[in-house]
Amino acid sequence: MNDIKSGIQYVFQTRNRMTLAVSGTGHTAMECAIFNSVEPGESVLAAVNGIWGERAADMAERIGARVNTLVAPPGGYLTTSEIEKALSKHRPVVFFLAHGESSTGVLHPLDGIGELCYKYNCLFLVDSVASLGGAPLYMDQQGIDILYTGSQKVLNAPPGTAPISFSERACQKVFNRRSKPVSFFLDLNWLANYWGCDEKPSRMYHHTGPVTAFYSLRESLAVLSEEGLENSWKRHQSAAEHFYAGLEKLGLKLFVKEKHARLPTVTTIVAPHGYDWKEVTSYIMKTHNLEISGGLGPSVGLVLRVGLMGCNSSKEKVDMVLAALKDALEHCHRSKV
Amino acid sequence: MNDIKSGIQYVFQTRNRMTLAVSGTGHTAMECAIFNSVEPGESVLAAVNGIWGERAADMAERIGARVNTLVAPPGGYLTTSEIEKALSKHRPVVFFLAHGESSTGVLHPLDGIGELCYKYNCLFLVDSVASLGGAPLYMDQQGIDILYTGSQKVLNAPPGTAPISFSERACQKVFNRRSKPVSFFLDLNWLANYWGCDEKPSRMYHHTGPVTAFYSLRESLAVLSEEGLENSWKRHQSAAEHFYAGLEKLGLKLFVKEKHARLPTVTTIVAPHGYDWKEVTSYIMKTHNLEISGGLGPSVGLVLRVGLMGCNSSKEKVDMVLAALKDALEHCHRSKV
Repeated sequence: MNDIKSGIQYVFQTRNRMTLAVSGTGHTAMECAIFNSVEPGESVLAAVNGIWGERAADMAERIGARVNTLVAPPGGYLTTSEIEKALSKHRPVVFFLAHGESSTGVLHPLDGIGELCYKYNCLFLVDSVASLGGAPLYMDQQGIDILYTGSQKVLNAPPGTAPISFSERACQKVFNRRSKPVSFFLDLNWLANYWGCDEKPSRMYHHTGPVTAFYSLRESLAVLSEEGLENSWKRHQSAAEHFYAGLEKLGLKLFVKEKHARLPTVTTIVAPHGYDWKEVTSYIMKTHNLEISGGLGPSVGLVLRVGLMGCNSSKEKVDMVLAALKDALEHCHRSKV
Repeated sequence: MNDIKSGIQYVFQTRNRMTLAVSGTGHTAMECAIFNSVEPGESVLAAVNGIWGERAADMAERIGARVNTLVAPPGGYLTTSEIEKALSKHRPVVFFLAHGESSTGVLHPLDGIGELCYKYNCLFLVDSVASLGGAPLYMDQQGIDILYTGSQKVLNAPPGTAPISFSERACQKVFNRRSKPVSFFLDLNWLANYWGCDEKPSRMYHHTGPVTAFYSLRESLAVLSEEGLENSWKRHQSAAEHFYAGLEKLGLKLFVKEKHARLPTVTTIVAPHGYDWKEVTSYIMKTHNLEISGGLGPSVGLVLRVGLMGCNSSKEKVDMVLAALKDALEHCHRSKV
C-alpha cells in the first residue's frame, strides 16, 4: 500500500500525504471526491464540455448541493475568463473540471485555473481518468486540490481501483465538515486511516480492499515510473500526431480543431459523411477484431472515438487502426451525397 | 454477466430478476442496498449483535434515515418476539439483519422473520457476506427482500465484487422513490440496465466494471454450483463440528453457547484465560504462517476468531489450525492465575 501511495504521488506530481487508491473504479473516486468535499446546501460549479461534467453535476445534486454548470459545446473548452466570471458569480466551494474529456476528445487546458480557484476560495477538483500518463499534469504546480484517475486507462491495470489525492487545503475542508459524508465506505476519515495517511498508525479495519487489484495497480504504477512520465507523455503525443496525419490522408476530419486541445489518448473523428457510423464500427469490430466507439453523451452521432493509450499508444497500433478505417471506408455502404 | 446472474440466483436460491453483482466489496453492496431502499426521514431498524448491524445503522443515519437499533449482547441473537415488538413499535421501512455475524461468530436464525417483515410492511434486508455457501439460506422461501454477499468468503474469488438481489417488493419501493439515491454509481435504475435486469435491452454505459474480477466471480459461482449448495453447507458444518470437538479437547471454550447459532465459517473461541490473546495470534502467525484474528468491534478482547471457509473448510485445514493452537498454548507466556 505504501508503494502504491508513492507511485501515485509520482504520477500525480504531488507531495500530498493524503494520497491513496479507492476500492472501486473511476466513478467511485469521483463520488469519493464529491462526497467528502461537498456538504448539503453548498455551491458547486461544474465545467461541462462532455459527459463527465454532467456526471459530476448529477452526483453533487444527489447529495443536496446547489449546482451550477458552465457549458462549452462538444469539442470545445472553457476559457479562464469564462471560468473566473462563473466563480465570481456562483462562489462555489468546489469547481469540477475533466482534464481529459473522453466523450469529445478534448484535453482541457489547466494553466491558470488553480490560481483562480485559490483566489475565489474554492477547491479545484480535476478528473484525469482519460488523461493521466498521456498528457502533462502537475497536481501541486497547477494548484489542483483533488485529483483522481482510473487504473485501466494509461496505467493498463485491470479496472477496479482508482488513485486519488487531496491537497492540504482540501483536507482542511474535508476534516472540518459539519455533517458526515453520505458514504461510510468512501469517508476520507476512514480511508486515510486505512491507507496510513493520517497521524494515527492504527490502520483499523475499514473494508476489505480488492487486494489482487491493488497488486496490479502497484505493478502498473511501477511500469509507468520506470518509463518516466515525460517519456510516456511524449510517446502518447507522438503516436497521436502520427494518427492525426494518417486520418487526414484518409480524408477524415478531427472533431477537435485546436491542436493543443486534443486528448492524445482518445481521438474523436468527425463521423464520416455519407456513412452510417454504426456500420463502420461494426464492420471494424467484425473484420479487424478492433473496437472503435461512436460518441458518448453529447457527442453521440457526431463522432467516432478511438482510444489508444498505455501499451496501445504506439506507431504500430496506430497503423493497425488506420488500416482498419481505410478498409471500412472502402467496404461500408456509402449513401449518395 | 448473464452467467453471473444465473449463478447468483442459484446460490441465493431466488428467482428475482433484479439480481446482479455490484462493482465493489461487501460494504459497497451494503450501501447499494441501503441507498436504494431508504429515503431521508424514513425509519430503519437494525439488529445489532456485532459490528455489521452497527455499520448498517451508521450508513442509514448518514443518508438521513431515522434509525433504531435492536441490540443483543455479543455472542447472542434476537428472538422473533423481540423483533416483532420492535417492528411494531418503530414501523421501519427496512429491517437489517446480518445472517453471519463474523465479529461474534453467530449464525442468526432467519425462519419466521421474513413473514414478520411482510406483516409490518417492511423490507427484510439480510447481510450474508460471511454465511453464503457455508450455511443454509433460501432467499425466496425465507422472505428476504434484499440479500447481498461478498466474493472473497466461501466463494473464494478475489475481493472486489459483491452479489446482490432485490425482490419484486423491494423493486416496487426502489423504483417508486420520491428522491434519487445519493449515489449515481449505486443507483439501481442504472445498475439494472447495465446488468440487463430491466425491460430495456439497452445496457447503456454506466461505469467500467471490474471485468477481471467479474470473470473470477463467474468461475467461483460455477465451482460452488458444481459442488452443490447442500454439499457445501454439509461440508462447512462437518468441518466446523470437527473443529469444535478439537477445541474442547484443548480445553478451549466456544464463545457461542447454542450450537445451532454457531457460524460454521467463522469460529469464535473465548480468549484463553491467563494468556495475552495478541501474543497467541502473533505466535501462530510467526511460527505457523497462519492468520488468526482477535475480536472485532464489540468482541475485541473477548475472543479469538478463526475463519475456515470455502476451500479452507476441510478436516485437514481444521487439524492444521488445532495443531497451531496447541503449540501456541504450550509456548506462549502464561500468567499465574
